[in-house]
Amino acid sequence: MGKLSFASDYMEGAHEAILSRLQTNNYIKMAGYGTDPLTESAREKIRTACGCPNADVFFLTGGTQTNAAVIGALLRPYEGVLSAISGHIYTHEAGAVESGGHKVLLLPEYLGKISAGDIQDTIEQYEVDENRDHLVRPGMVYISQPTEFGALYSLSELRDISRVCRKKRIPLYVDGARLAYALACPENNVTLQDLAELCDVFYIGGTKCGALFGEAVVVPQRGFIPHFVTVMKQHGALLAKGWLLGLQFDTLFTNGLYQEIGRPAIAAANRIRNALRETGFQLAYDNPTNQVFPVLENKKMAKLAEAVDFCFWEKYDYEQSIIRLAASWATTDADTDRLIAVLKQLQQG
Amino acid sequence: MGKLSFASDYMEGAHEAILSRLQTNNYIKMAGYGTDPLTESAREKIRTACGCPNADVFFLTGGTQTNAAVIGALLRPYEGVLSAISGHIYTHEAGAVESGGHKVLLLPEYLGKISAGDIQDTIEQYEVDENRDHLVRPGMVYISQPTEFGALYSLSELRDISRVCRKKRIPLYVDGARLAYALACPENNVTLQDLAELCDVFYIGGTKCGALFGEAVVVPQRGFIPHFVTVMKQHGALLAKGWLLGLQFDTLFTNGLYQEIGRPAIAAANRIRNALRETGFQLAYDNPTNQVFPVLENKKMAKLAEAVDFCFWEKYDYEQSIIRLAASWATTDADTDRLIAVLKQLQQG
Amino acid sequence: MGKLSFASDYMEGAHEAILSRLQTNNYIKMAGYGTDPLTESAREKIRTACGCPNADVFFLTGGTQTNAAVIGALLRPYEGVLSAISGHIYTHEAGAVESGGHKVLLLPEYLGKISAGDIQDTIEQYEVDENRDHLVRPGMVYISQPTEFGALYSLSELRDISRVCRKKRIPLYVDGARLAYALACPENNVTLQDLAELCDVFYIGGTKCGALFGEAVVVPQRGFIPHFVTVMKQHGALLAKGWLLGLQFDTLFTNGLYQEIGRPAIAAANRIRNALRETGFQLAYDNPTNQVFPVLENKKMAKLAEAVDFCFWEKYDYEQSIIRLAASWATTDADTDRLIAVLKQLQQG
Amino acid sequence: MGKLSFASDYMEGAHEAILSRLQTNNYIKMAGYGTDPLTESAREKIRTACGCPNADVFFLTGGTQTNAAVIGALLRPYEGVLSAISGHIYTHEAGAVESGGHKVLLLPEYLGKISAGDIQDTIEQYEVDENRDHLVRPGMVYISQPTEFGALYSLSELRDISRVCRKKRIPLYVDGARLAYALACPENNVTLQDLAELCDVFYIGGTKCGALFGEAVVVPQRGFIPHFVTVMKQHGALLAKGWLLGLQFDTLFTNGLYQEIGRPAIAAANRIRNALRETGFQLAYDNPTNQVFPVLENKKMAKLAEAVDFCFWEKYDYEQSIIRLAASWATTDADTDRLIAVLKQLQQG
Repeated sequence: MGKLSFASDYMEGAHEAILSRLQTNNYIKMAGYGTDPLTESAREKIRTACGCPNADVFFLTGGTQTNAAVIGALLRPYEGVLSAISGHIYTHEAGAVESGGHKVLLLPEYLGKISAGDIQDTIEQYEVDENRDHLVRPGMVYISQPTEFGALYSLSELRDISRVCRKKRIPLYVDGARLAYALACPENNVTLQDLAELCDVFYIGGTKCGALFGEAVVVPQRGFIPHFVTVMKQHGALLAKGWLLGLQFDTLFTNGLYQEIGRPAIAAANRIRNALRETGFQLAYDNPTNQVFPVLENKKMAKLAEAVDFCFWEKYDYEQSIIRLAASWATTDADTDRLIAVLKQLQQG
Repeated sequence: MGKLSFASDYMEGAHEAILSRLQTNNYIKMAGYGTDPLTESAREKIRTACGCPNADVFFLTGGTQTNAAVIGALLRPYEGVLSAISGHIYTHEAGAVESGGHKVLLLPEYLGKISAGDIQDTIEQYEVDENRDHLVRPGMVYISQPTEFGALYSLSELRDISRVCRKKRIPLYVDGARLAYALACPENNVTLQDLAELCDVFYIGGTKCGALFGEAVVVPQRGFIPHFVTVMKQHGALLAKGWLLGLQFDTLFTNGLYQEIGRPAIAAANRIRNALRETGFQLAYDNPTNQVFPVLENKKMAKLAEAVDFCFWEKYDYEQSIIRLAASWATTDADTDRLIAVLKQLQQG
Repeated sequence: MGKLSFASDYMEGAHEAILSRLQTNNYIKMAGYGTDPLTESAREKIRTACGCPNADVFFLTGGTQTNAAVIGALLRPYEGVLSAISGHIYTHEAGAVESGGHKVLLLPEYLGKISAGDIQDTIEQYEVDENRDHLVRPGMVYISQPTEFGALYSLSELRDISRVCRKKRIPLYVDGARLAYALACPENNVTLQDLAELCDVFYIGGTKCGALFGEAVVVPQRGFIPHFVTVMKQHGALLAKGWLLGLQFDTLFTNGLYQEIGRPAIAAANRIRNALRETGFQLAYDNPTNQVFPVLENKKMAKLAEAVDFCFWEKYDYEQSIIRLAASWATTDADTDRLIAVLKQLQQG
Repeated sequence: MGKLSFASDYMEGAHEAILSRLQTNNYIKMAGYGTDPLTESAREKIRTACGCPNADVFFLTGGTQTNAAVIGALLRPYEGVLSAISGHIYTHEAGAVESGGHKVLLLPEYLGKISAGDIQDTIEQYEVDENRDHLVRPGMVYISQPTEFGALYSLSELRDISRVCRKKRIPLYVDGARLAYALACPENNVTLQDLAELCDVFYIGGTKCGALFGEAVVVPQRGFIPHFVTVMKQHGALLAKGWLLGLQFDTLFTNGLYQEIGRPAIAAANRIRNALRETGFQLAYDNPTNQVFPVLENKKMAKLAEAVDFCFWEKYDYEQSIIRLAASWATTDADTDRLIAVLKQLQQG
């Protein structure tokens, strides 16, 4: 029984069904670069799940890679991407978007969410700016579901954003690195079909949601991103053994596994949130998904670190910090029990 | 018993020891991004195998990604990379190097190999060119071992190239996508230690050599590429579950597995080459590694395609073509027997 | 007598001495790309004026070009440039820095100035961040003298910033697009020699300061930017007839012309500021240089626009706006008189 | 009477009418960035001269800058530009195109000219390549009129190239750095109207053709390059005092000056070519424009260098070299006489 860890949701391997199929398929020779039947089957299952039979579906190996490739493919040189200040592309991707030649245009946010109104205002301000030739043109919108703070866009919020994007003719792109945890949430009312209807591109996260690695990019309108396989290759994002990704997503989209796989994480996170509240801890950000953000006195944080791995988020004030406890699809009740016990003890001193 | 395939060396999964460890380690929580103990163990074993205890070792997921990240990290904006015309970076990586802002400077070649003399001449011609401020400066050398045509640099050839590079103070980088097939060759006299001594950066290929995916970048002189993890992140090349790469290379570098794993491929390729010669086929390029390049009349090529998957290489003349038959670490004697039988029958008409 | 214009400081041609020499030199054949004797003479005069006899001096045609070339040459791919939020590179250069692959890292500001303390804090926060491999490294500091709001760094402030940069071993770069207007200010205590001593690179603006066009990049420590002429060529910033730039800067640095040329602008701006204050207008930003930023009721702004060209700066509130009135080296007393008369009339209604 | 120079065609200043207008306009305040009436007048005159009243016309300061901006604006990330191996963008622009992320795709050439057939074959080979997802897509065609060797495309050759480009739906771009010297040639049968009809973008060179500096980009189909002013700004190619470019091109396109201005250069070059032939020199490349390429024994080349500045082109063999003698719009009969005398003396030994 090692040290307890709620440091992240990408610390375990993969769902057992995936490992098992890897074993079975190991010596079957598969065509390269995603041209194999496993990958085609995965594409088809994702199209069905999203209710868009004509969608293009592409598989990449990680989130930063996916964001850089999609954004680089959608923007023209004179355009930038609108994002919340806390957007992962702005904060923790080592400048991959800028490295590809594009500016991230910042919008105010609440719990990582941006609003249709702010998007519209920003675009319209650009449109009337006398110096707009000297400005980066807002060329697309990037949002995450859930956000970096674990919050969810409601269907109505997403519809508003989509409406503005279509009115202004710029693509809407949704980063779904943790999408399974949104889908597993009772509070969530945005389905895969909604995403397919309202977005121009979105990705279904695998790395944090039961796959060894991998993200599935869905482009509901076939051909919307021309030559995206070449763009992927250029980004070093075209896996030689693409069937590894096909196999994983084919498994995740068999019998609705993906829609269910986040449930244990949500259950665990809810138990942890409740326990924190009951024992008198403050939550820095309220959210219904798999990440929990308590505020701790620095001394208690140090003490907690002896028993549990977690992620330091940021300073709350001089004497307190915000930390993140992340549950995953693989989090066990036993580990959650142990964590809650530790937290209670911590509070009781 | 499906259709016979010698289309490539990346069509099967991974060595069984790797699959088995994936199963065992699946629920052990591992720190992210290559900071886990499995990855550290793999680094240490590679350092030992290369005889360079201070080397930096980094793990990436594919070859194009690795080339783009390393070349982007080594060059300054005003510099380009010297490469054979057939170099993979010039021909089949969708312009990833140029996409990163750098020109590929072309050198003549023989079987994919470039010479120390041509490298030196090119650099010295640049040095005396009156317009050199208008030219891209030769900033590093890229070679592959084996080359795209399966040829091998001898130790003496590699020493000569290394000497020129050091004299001219530009890095030498070796793409080892198929390095296991060089190491398994009796004709090869370049060891991992030699590479570590003579190159500034090289990568040990996993994807085509027994891993599910992955390449190990070795930088013999610690710190030679500053902040390379950030460069990897920026390139979308930093795997969240880096331990997947660590586990694979740790396995490949246990008990000398990597040095042995290419042997079945070499044996199969030699048997195929012999059978081709005996039955009167011409070999377009002679080489001692796992790829075989026969010249076939187009009619025979079409017939062969009914029984075997292979790779069309290029037109030889109006009536004949060059094809590639690739054996891999997983090629079975039975498949080689079947292929040879098909080839004999093809020649007898 | 056309419409009065205080819209900008780049609306007239060049100092008469420049035009006169253009005429004289027109048919003298000059070597290309800045290798001519006029350019060498200009370099030498700038070295003398800056008190750094070993400086590298380069001439480019415009500010955005200069910033992009210098920043692209100084940063490594994993690095970004620290700048005030109002920094010209962040706001009005169409994303040229990002287009070159680099992120602009934002710092808080006062009147466009950033502080040594904030620079140091940002770098030290980066240094201790557990996820710093996922962050863009602060790789240089960009400031403007004067700032976008016309404010000046004092010698002591500049010394503090320089000290932090040297301690942290990152270059300090000063954008001197309007440097002549700083040098002509009685309030200014930062000389060209101070800039040469405290910065790693700075540019002396010509376009807005008496030249037809052109900026002179000074690199006090010879060789600090290797192969910068190639970088310039790559940026399309190497003028074929480089002697046009040499001629202009040679003229501007003969008999201290550059240090004097801004005086009429400062005198005019001071008169305008006084008149505004006297007639009861508010100044949005106080500064001692050639740009004046009054706050106007929107109705009065509309009325002013009938008589004078100026630059709308930004909304102050729902009913008032900030505008910019810019004086230049060529502003005449007569025009200033007329402007003041118009402003007085506007206030009296 | 200084040393004779035929080193290049960008060594003198500008046509006198330009200098004179610079003087006259010096204190007239002009709006920035090409929004002034002089620039609009120049645009209108160029539209008229090209017979395309709806054309977009943009002014930039130099050729490398223009090529990089146009090519960067026309290509998508997965595309490259087809060019002759001797194309200026491939050889002497310091990798500016690659720096912008794009590969130059090489075509065989004769005297710097590429053929419609080779363009078509290259595109069709790409279209059927099984691995085309791993290749850079041919996205546009770049040619020069005249070429680097001074040769001219005939109208029929240009029509063929244009037909292929339109059939394959990729833009045709013509670099006209020395276009005035083509237009002044009796052998030339391609007019400005033809260029406007057959190309998607072309530029009319000013720097080498009577302007101090500047190139005029013509886009016959309005809106074909969206947001090009922003692209220019991003490339540092948007001159603050854009009216300087407007004034120059307005002058060059008044009373057909541009179409005539190259005549003295053609006359001089023809006299030099004849003198060379008469005195027994070989011409390395035959062409009818302003550049002359004799083959000289190295000893004679050294001797010539004492009396005349010229441009070393390349080695012809061990004992001979090719040099370039360039005449310009400002070349005088007296200088041509002197050069011819020197050449005759050289041959007589």
